[in-house]
Amino acid sequence: MKAMEEKILREGQVLPGGILKVGSFLNQQIDVAFLAECAAKAAAAFADEGVTKVMTIEASGIPLAVLIAQALGVRAVVVKKHASANVSGAVYSAEIDSFTHGNHYTAVVSRDYILPGDRVLMADDFLACGNAFRGMMEILKQAGAVCVGCVAAIEKGFQGGGDSLRAEGVRVLSLAVVDRMDNAGITFRA
Amino acid sequence: MKAMEEKILREGQVLPGGILKVGSFLNQQIDVAFLAECAAKAAAAFADEGVTKVMTIEASGIPLAVLIAQALGVRAVVVKKHASANVSGAVYSAEIDSFTHGNHYTAVVSRDYILPGDRVLMADDFLACGNAFRGMMEILKQAGAVCVGCVAAIEKGFQGGGDSLRAEGVRVLSLAVVDRMDNAGITFRA
Repeated sequence: MKAMEEKILREGQVLPGGILKVGSFLNQQIDVAFLAECAAKAAAAFADEGVTKVMTIEASGIPLAVLIAQALGVRAVVVKKHASANVSGAVYSAEIDSFTHGNHYTAVVSRDYILPGDRVLMADDFLACGNAFRGMMEILKQAGAVCVGCVAAIEKGFQGGGDSLRAEGVRVLSLAVVDRMDNAGITFRA
Repeated sequence: MKAMEEKILREGQVLPGGILKVGSFLNQQIDVAFLAECAAKAAAAFADEGVTKVMTIEASGIPLAVLIAQALGVRAVVVKKHASANVSGAVYSAEIDSFTHGNHYTAVVSRDYILPGDRVLMADDFLACGNAFRGMMEILKQAGAVCVGCVAAIEKGFQGGGDSLRAEGVRVLSLAVVDRMDNAGITFRA
């Protein structure tokens, strides 16, 4: 999707440590009108899949997930990074290593919100090693729900998570795939 | 706003410790179509205020903030609960005590995303003691931006934060105000 590539080139910054900073439109300041266009394209791509819910893990994927859910006319489900007073009763959970934050956490969601037979589209801002998506897939497996695919605003192709999921037959739609980034610039997958 | 009161009565649960669980539509599973209607009403109420940004603190207020920003045609800004690799450079920050989570955190946002003169509408899922809104107001003050008001999906009137803000002249729009809740039921402010 050219629009996301152009947006990254216009507003993104490559920081040391393999971080692509896109805070001006994706995960600190949200360019809602732009992201809604991205969400509409993602929703159209999965329109024939009978999606019943769009799932993300808090927090940076929430805007995209909510806007895709809106476009598909379904509910969004936000997996929490930690159990809290808001998450009570029986839960599904998965252990996840975060590349961005350099930590490990237990993702939890109430069993009430993912039902057997749900057809779930997963969404997140970044797809790097794929750990967050794999954690969500683990939760869907526990729930007896169907994973219809992943949408990532930006895939870091050089970290391999997206290709590894594709090799296993998971449908992955990334709105931009960065294959290389350094001081010299950013190269997108053709 | 009757719609939110009816939704709470239909789907909410009162849990021990003063917790109102609304995970089925507000902060775990998101009823996006319902929340978009709420956002449209909030946007209409502040339509004459020249709002330039809608601000929230991650994570549960993000869906409402994004949908209000969409309705107003402006960007949303998500204040982070912790500095991370995604938040670089100079920041504004505020110290906040959380009632829901029973902890204390430093909220941070890059200085690039709140500019002097910005007219900012704040949004969150809950307004209890008002600490999150006061933290955001502290950030707006640091930035030289204008606070045009607060939108809360649900105000816990009995915790006093909303009335305290109103007494100081802050415009507060809560889509439902719970004045009492216990095993016997939920009473809304007339």
